[in-house]
Amino acid sequence: MKIIVVGFEGDIGKAVCKELGARHDLILAGRSNGDIRVDMADRASVDAMYTKTGIVDAVVSTAGDVHFGLLFEFTEETFMLGLQNKVMGQVNLVLAGLSAVADAGSFTLTSGVLDRDPIRMGAAAATANGALGGFVVGAAIEMPRQLRLNVVSPGLLDVSAPRYGAWFPGHETVPSERVGRAYAKSVEGAITGQVMIVE
Amino acid sequence: MKIIVVGFEGDIGKAVCKELGARHDLILAGRSNGDIRVDMADRASVDAMYTKTGIVDAVVSTAGDVHFGLLFEFTEETFMLGLQNKVMGQVNLVLAGLSAVADAGSFTLTSGVLDRDPIRMGAAAATANGALGGFVVGAAIEMPRQLRLNVVSPGLLDVSAPRYGAWFPGHETVPSERVGRAYAKSVEGAITGQVMIVE
Repeated sequence: MKIIVVGFEGDIGKAVCKELGARHDLILAGRSNGDIRVDMADRASVDAMYTKTGIVDAVVSTAGDVHFGLLFEFTEETFMLGLQNKVMGQVNLVLAGLSAVADAGSFTLTSGVLDRDPIRMGAAAATANGALGGFVVGAAIEMPRQLRLNVVSPGLLDVSAPRYGAWFPGHETVPSERVGRAYAKSVEGAITGQVMIVE
Repeated sequence: MKIIVVGFEGDIGKAVCKELGARHDLILAGRSNGDIRVDMADRASVDAMYTKTGIVDAVVSTAGDVHFGLLFEFTEETFMLGLQNKVMGQVNLVLAGLSAVADAGSFTLTSGVLDRDPIRMGAAAATANGALGGFVVGAAIEMPRQLRLNVVSPGLLDVSAPRYGAWFPGHETVPSERVGRAYAKSVEGAITGQVMIVE
């Protein structure tokens, strides 16, 4: 398959590339690096990306900015970052991709653990994650041409723990390989409209 | 208790006022009517509302705009409406209210059924509902002074069915009184961080 991977440089993106890269033709898309540059929070940039790639079989996103901060310190601007970038950005990939993905192709987005297992300073991330879960449930039933749509919601990756573990006290980490396989299940399998929890 | 009700004119708002108005002092807040005018999507307007009300015991919101439309017809603008208004608006009520609600007071927001039981044209609503669920889970653990935070997620109200039922084929309606009681449970009870499904 020809698969666009948006956000290939992060820990989840690397796990996706390792799992899917062995069997598929990956097009790496990033804001400042990659085969194609894209700012997914800008619909015109997403449209331009699909024009360059031509028809693909799948789109995987592991990208999305969100602000972490104490609840009482959030402003409208810092709170909206997650809704505009992590949520609307990934939604843009789907809306713009409805005519750019081949029949029976798929979109696989990424949320995270914080809307079911919250941490301090994670209110905006929990909100964005919940939004993405609602989106796949709501949008999957309207997908044309047997297109599929899922979101992977992984716990803290083992490889991310050295940097972020202090913010996730007591959280079990998830093997990166297991996270990678969830994307394979979404891309190569047949499920749709699922929040795929990986713990 | 002294309770602000934002969005008192809709079907859910009326159910809330009927249930809570019998026992409490309600301050009705709306965009164009009510005891106080507020545009909850504008943080400055929300701050001004709390300045006018002074300290309250609870805040209930049944308000929030979201666009309904076919998936392939959504633009960034129409999709973002729900995130900016229904989500950020209700989040603003909480963030601005952290210093305006009395110790052990509560915030009760409103989402809806569409992120668990989707309908055509409801993708943005499902997204907003999921976001609000994530928010209460994420934010409740950081609330100061024993403040509580819940979101009520009702199915289609019986009284709304004549107008909206055609968009919800086969959905069971929910008695308005039952919906009203969920807000009483949140306001007068002790739970927090809950998505309160009313079906």
